[in-house]
Amino acid sequence: MTTGLFGGLFARGNVDASDAAWLQAMLDTEAALARAAERAGLAPTGSAAAVTAKSKTEFFENRTLGEQAVATGNPVPALVRELTRLSGAPVHHGATSQDIIDTAGVLIARRAIDVVLADLSAAAATCAGLATNDAVMSGRTLLQQAVPVTFGLVAAGWLTAIDEARQSLHRVKTTRLAIQFGGAAGTLASLGDAGSQVAAFLAEELDLPLPVLPWHTNRLRIIEIAAALAETCAALGKIARDVTLLAQTEVAEVRAGAGGSSTMPHKQNPVAAITILGCTKQAPGLLATLAAAAEQEHQRAAGSWHSEWQPLFHLLTLTGSATSWSIKLLSDLEIDPARMRANLNATHGLPMAESVTTLLTPALGRLQAHDLVAQASARATTRNTNLADALLSDDTSAAALATAGITRPELESALEPESYLGATAEFIRRALAAHSATDEILGT
Amino acid sequence: MTTGLFGGLFARGNVDASDAAWLQAMLDTEAALARAAERAGLAPTGSAAAVTAKSKTEFFENRTLGEQAVATGNPVPALVRELTRLSGAPVHHGATSQDIIDTAGVLIARRAIDVVLADLSAAAATCAGLATNDAVMSGRTLLQQAVPVTFGLVAAGWLTAIDEARQSLHRVKTTRLAIQFGGAAGTLASLGDAGSQVAAFLAEELDLPLPVLPWHTNRLRIIEIAAALAETCAALGKIARDVTLLAQTEVAEVRAGAGGSSTMPHKQNPVAAITILGCTKQAPGLLATLAAAAEQEHQRAAGSWHSEWQPLFHLLTLTGSATSWSIKLLSDLEIDPARMRANLNATHGLPMAESVTTLLTPALGRLQAHDLVAQASARATTRNTNLADALLSDDTSAAALATAGITRPELESALEPESYLGATAEFIRRALAAHSATDEILGT
Amino acid sequence: MTTGLFGGLFARGNVDASDAAWLQAMLDTEAALARAAERAGLAPTGSAAAVTAKSKTEFFENRTLGEQAVATGNPVPALVRELTRLSGAPVHHGATSQDIIDTAGVLIARRAIDVVLADLSAAAATCAGLATNDAVMSGRTLLQQAVPVTFGLVAAGWLTAIDEARQSLHRVKTTRLAIQFGGAAGTLASLGDAGSQVAAFLAEELDLPLPVLPWHTNRLRIIEIAAALAETCAALGKIARDVTLLAQTEVAEVRAGAGGSSTMPHKQNPVAAITILGCTKQAPGLLATLAAAAEQEHQRAAGSWHSEWQPLFHLLTLTGSATSWSIKLLSDLEIDPARMRANLNATHGLPMAESVTTLLTPALGRLQAHDLVAQASARATTRNTNLADALLSDDTSAAALATAGITRPELESALEPESYLGATAEFIRRALAAHSATDEILGT
Amino acid sequence: MTTGLFGGLFARGNVDASDAAWLQAMLDTEAALARAAERAGLAPTGSAAAVTAKSKTEFFENRTLGEQAVATGNPVPALVRELTRLSGAPVHHGATSQDIIDTAGVLIARRAIDVVLADLSAAAATCAGLATNDAVMSGRTLLQQAVPVTFGLVAAGWLTAIDEARQSLHRVKTTRLAIQFGGAAGTLASLGDAGSQVAAFLAEELDLPLPVLPWHTNRLRIIEIAAALAETCAALGKIARDVTLLAQTEVAEVRAGAGGSSTMPHKQNPVAAITILGCTKQAPGLLATLAAAAEQEHQRAAGSWHSEWQPLFHLLTLTGSATSWSIKLLSDLEIDPARMRANLNATHGLPMAESVTTLLTPALGRLQAHDLVAQASARATTRNTNLADALLSDDTSAAALATAGITRPELESALEPESYLGATAEFIRRALAAHSATDEILGT
Repeated sequence: MTTGLFGGLFARGNVDASDAAWLQAMLDTEAALARAAERAGLAPTGSAAAVTAKSKTEFFENRTLGEQAVATGNPVPALVRELTRLSGAPVHHGATSQDIIDTAGVLIARRAIDVVLADLSAAAATCAGLATNDAVMSGRTLLQQAVPVTFGLVAAGWLTAIDEARQSLHRVKTTRLAIQFGGAAGTLASLGDAGSQVAAFLAEELDLPLPVLPWHTNRLRIIEIAAALAETCAALGKIARDVTLLAQTEVAEVRAGAGGSSTMPHKQNPVAAITILGCTKQAPGLLATLAAAAEQEHQRAAGSWHSEWQPLFHLLTLTGSATSWSIKLLSDLEIDPARMRANLNATHGLPMAESVTTLLTPALGRLQAHDLVAQASARATTRNTNLADALLSDDTSAAALATAGITRPELESALEPESYLGATAEFIRRALAAHSATDEILGT
Repeated sequence: MTTGLFGGLFARGNVDASDAAWLQAMLDTEAALARAAERAGLAPTGSAAAVTAKSKTEFFENRTLGEQAVATGNPVPALVRELTRLSGAPVHHGATSQDIIDTAGVLIARRAIDVVLADLSAAAATCAGLATNDAVMSGRTLLQQAVPVTFGLVAAGWLTAIDEARQSLHRVKTTRLAIQFGGAAGTLASLGDAGSQVAAFLAEELDLPLPVLPWHTNRLRIIEIAAALAETCAALGKIARDVTLLAQTEVAEVRAGAGGSSTMPHKQNPVAAITILGCTKQAPGLLATLAAAAEQEHQRAAGSWHSEWQPLFHLLTLTGSATSWSIKLLSDLEIDPARMRANLNATHGLPMAESVTTLLTPALGRLQAHDLVAQASARATTRNTNLADALLSDDTSAAALATAGITRPELESALEPESYLGATAEFIRRALAAHSATDEILGT
Repeated sequence: MTTGLFGGLFARGNVDASDAAWLQAMLDTEAALARAAERAGLAPTGSAAAVTAKSKTEFFENRTLGEQAVATGNPVPALVRELTRLSGAPVHHGATSQDIIDTAGVLIARRAIDVVLADLSAAAATCAGLATNDAVMSGRTLLQQAVPVTFGLVAAGWLTAIDEARQSLHRVKTTRLAIQFGGAAGTLASLGDAGSQVAAFLAEELDLPLPVLPWHTNRLRIIEIAAALAETCAALGKIARDVTLLAQTEVAEVRAGAGGSSTMPHKQNPVAAITILGCTKQAPGLLATLAAAAEQEHQRAAGSWHSEWQPLFHLLTLTGSATSWSIKLLSDLEIDPARMRANLNATHGLPMAESVTTLLTPALGRLQAHDLVAQASARATTRNTNLADALLSDDTSAAALATAGITRPELESALEPESYLGATAEFIRRALAAHSATDEILGT
Repeated sequence: MTTGLFGGLFARGNVDASDAAWLQAMLDTEAALARAAERAGLAPTGSAAAVTAKSKTEFFENRTLGEQAVATGNPVPALVRELTRLSGAPVHHGATSQDIIDTAGVLIARRAIDVVLADLSAAAATCAGLATNDAVMSGRTLLQQAVPVTFGLVAAGWLTAIDEARQSLHRVKTTRLAIQFGGAAGTLASLGDAGSQVAAFLAEELDLPLPVLPWHTNRLRIIEIAAALAETCAALGKIARDVTLLAQTEVAEVRAGAGGSSTMPHKQNPVAAITILGCTKQAPGLLATLAAAAEQEHQRAAGSWHSEWQPLFHLLTLTGSATSWSIKLLSDLEIDPARMRANLNATHGLPMAESVTTLLTPALGRLQAHDLVAQASARATTRNTNLADALLSDDTSAAALATAGITRPELESALEPESYLGATAEFIRRALAAHSATDEILGT
């Protein structure tokens, strides 16, 4: 799928929503319908085999079908005429164009989601490995150093999001990807009494569920598919954003790829992370288009339905590309524990201010402790000293510490990042356990 | 909630995401946290009761808190100081501002979704009643008359979409609304070894699940909540769109309310349907904002998180309003079966053209039958005659009919709309059965 | 540009944002830069000619460049190496990849906007012709019949919107399409003192303005381009929406094309209008993506910039397609004045209720007149009579009419649609005058 | 405007799109219309004064009007009845509800844009001051250090974007904010021959232009207003993003405010920048909603128009808030030139790699120079040495330097950031000149 000037960036991996894939999926649907109709006694024995034999893209030309699509607003009428001619057998029993295009879309979505799920499984496995890394680093909030975390916890957060996206995709795939089959106005009238039976056979032939009703103008399942894809993009975009930030020259806690620059020979651009963002940032707008398109008129819509095709398949492709890039991103990621430690130390213990506040709270109360440490933090910054010194060299705070019975060693111990990781280890265990459970549910 | 100049339109019903509701939800969270901390032995006996007693909006002033929020970027620090002062007891154990705001948001979302679910249940029940209406009407595709349907099938379609939205909301409510509790950087470090226990108690106090990890910068659950709300809006927007179209002066198959005009005394504007659309058309953009906001930095984000608050609560309010309006819309809806029949008849049987094609197909083959009827349809339109006459008065098609052994009575019977409803009755039964199953799952 | 399965629908017309067009535009930029550098004395005489000679897509393979783009995150570094090799001359003087891609994008946008402007000019001319059609028809508000208008006024409204879009596109084209040239961090440092001169020459070579500053991370002009395209889509989408509504079977005031159905032989689907909507409904989401992408970091962005390429060029293509379809839509449009009159008459004068109110107001006051006519309208509807009879057959209103000195002939005259067109003729004149002015400004 | 729990964050400054402002703007419109009607001889002398006297919010109750709005779908009919009763004079001559709401919206938008323009002017002036700061710092691309820039150039970039937004707002304000006045279906029929004259007087009374046609369903001007606001948000969001990045603990080149944390006493959160992002990130979704709403039916729309009100006024408020915050952000900004220098030096001259390449290019050719320096950069990183040493200590590159006649002093000089600023000074001059021109155009 990585053909073309930008294909390697935005269509990496194995999701295929090309014109050829579309055509094949429509032919697969027509062939399955021919088999269903034959099973229901609506077509002569052998006719379905004839149709199936000709339902291959090699017998059709996209350009010609595309030209004929202009007359009818979609390529199905031309496809039906040509498939009838080629096979010499009846096709399209009871169907309307939308039945074929929507079902083909579902087939493409199913294949795409399978690809994305497989790639996400690989990305998640890599994250699970990274989650065991116990390098201590600064947690960062509002882009400021906060209290310490471990890199393992960061990776566990990435993992949990990917696993949530996997569950959403899995749910959508197993419960919301259904055939579309309703005929002209959703009644299957042209099949007389045989409508339901043909529908059931069609679902069997395509191994897709039968929906409660045809969903020609009930597009909630499209929103759900798109939302699951947008969730996937959100999980991956967050990882990529973190990596670009951690890879900043001044932070340098990770190295993430080596994209050269056309002008600056020293640059090591985080190409995978940036390309992931180039993909994932397109998702919200496409999701909005699909949600807006759900307001569809009567039995089949005049325009909204047509506006779904491109955004849905673009979203599938972009999600596939971002997922494929994420495997590379996570596999290539190099962690620099020494730099993590150095960054933590560079601010003279300020990220440990909360730890000291916690130490003082039993004796002073939370608010007084908070204010005492806030003032000491300000002094430490101004005088370029560390927090322990700032506290002990000030008469008021030294007195408060003495009153509270806190010694310098206790204070210094409270300033050790390792001593202030709270539930980090347990959280990582929980994320890994949930990951195993996700793997089990998804059968990977 | 229907205060203010536009509140009756865009904030109808019982969803409450007002400033007061926000404040109360934040106080509920702080009070629950105080109880959790006391249970964990981190606060003196009785302190939680003192905090709970003061956790009422009457003790606080939104305006003052709002002014203080400007200094810190959110209202929680001011709230914590004031609640500490009022209660004389410790509060906010181990929490960061985001823990309080996110959990409060979840509480508001839970209450809102409960309201929406109750209103959707009423709307669905009305739809289920309408689904038994067997008035025959024209199905319409691409805004053109197509083959006949019944009004019951139209209502069954609305019902199925509402039921799907209900299931999405129910799923999100029961599986994705969890407490937020991670402290400064998601490690609960300031609680030492007690972090997990306090978290578990907090979840119990609020009757919310404990998430795998704090989700400070994993916003997939926000996307899921928003997507379920957008689905609800999509289901209701489609109904409202259909009603505005069916209520058009020239169609007049339904009457939907009686909104007067400031200038035109005869106008009967479909106010409920239009207001629903005024609400639901805002959903996709808000969903996109929330999906885009999910790319959040490190342990807590610098801006994206802040950009979630307004769209999420606006989306809750709009969905609640649209749902409340939909009860009125559906209850007030008047159906005009005579006009439905008249509209079907007005086009001289053309909507039955597919039926005639189906009749001719065994003898002539699908494509030849299609072309024969297409030509007759064109003649019927030009000469203002009906399709049976157009077929029988033309030599070629009369010959084809004779060859096929089709008599005028058979032809006229094929032109009766009632004879061409296909699986309509079965589809309605399926929709009603699925509705009962949904009611059962949701416990309504 | 109408190749591929869906190309005839979504890429009709002459906008070319294909991979090949991209590649050529990047080569045009490199060649222009080579000429600029030679003019500035930075490259040997004749070297620019060598580069220009090789700056043709036939010498390059998209697939190969695309594969190499994966290593650097964009195709320019590979292109530069290959162009250097082919020409044996220096290229890419002082430029960074973004300079080439952004300037190429501007070139594509300029060509696309020129195509769209030419097609809009044709569409506008057709609208201007339609604006002289004085067939009286019902105005419709909230999808209900309101007071009368003429079809000419409807077309004048379409025309005015198209002309506004043309002016926006023209403004953007002439003022906001500028070269991008800043080098690695927007300082042109590698060109030493020659930077500005090369920039000025480059602008000359490409016949594009020089911006105040390089706009690597100032993306306001992208938002403006996208907004002008979205405006164009809005103008065309409104026309297409009106046409689908006027072409409804029950309204039938216009006929708009003859798209056959794969199942219903009588269908005359308004393919052009529907396809326009299929294009234009994608615009808002793409606009949102581009507006969101404008938050770009430092001197050149990490991901947001990459997320612009596809939506911008998809939006150009869709706008081009919608515009091309609109020429067909407007040219093929058939108006049915008799049906317009019949639809107006079908409601027994109710659309003229405001006219009667206006007649009564001087004598009765606006509110009393309004209420009297509202009651008569209700009676007319219930009794299936016309408004004049409903007023005169009721004692109270007959008395009021008598008091006001209004006779039946005056009343009946007030019920003539032609008598109640207000400023219609003047508005059409104004729209046509503004259209001529627009043509003059745009030089068409 | 900073009332309420979140008002200080999202509604800072003087933009007023509250219910009260809406009500006043509608009353202003009715009063102006009464004056216009009196001037045109359609109302008795003195009646307009009576209407104007009562057109004050103090005489009305939003809650009551809001309740009555539910019956008609908008608050105007109730307002008209009440204003008629209070004034005892005729009002609403020839108007439809949409005329009043749209014109009121335009009045609110004009006042809001005036506020935003004034605040942007202040922000731009501060930027212009910052643009003269010649502290050298690292340019950064893809979040990696690139070649040097000055802080003044960064500020000049911010300035240019603000100035572009100002010009867009100014253009929209002066050319696109027009009255809406068309009556029921855009013909002003109920005013007979007086329609145009009343319209012209109304425009005069409100000091707004007269549009070519009523724009009831031509919403291009709404898209233009929204796009100009989104541009403003884009300009401010970029500044805020830069500031959050430059204020990162590890970068620390600017200090931007001192938002305390509820838990971490040392935190200095960049509250203004973060709140700006919390506002500006909501703009793209609102813009999309408004662009999508432009597809409006016939003469007045059924739902799309109603969906515009909230997003337009939310967007005005958010833009106003972001602008107001930006004044604070820019005024409070502290620059740390020493840290800028330290950050540049921390990477051993690597940001100057391009400079060295430029130095070597005349002798070695661009590609060979690029590769030589890329290899030296890699060695410098690995060995923690600077680029000059890495080049001179390697035999191959030392030989190349010797061949090229480049001495160590020349090399070291090329590694001085000040020597590699290219067109920086000229670009700043151009930005300041364009700023002065913008000030002049806008009359500030």
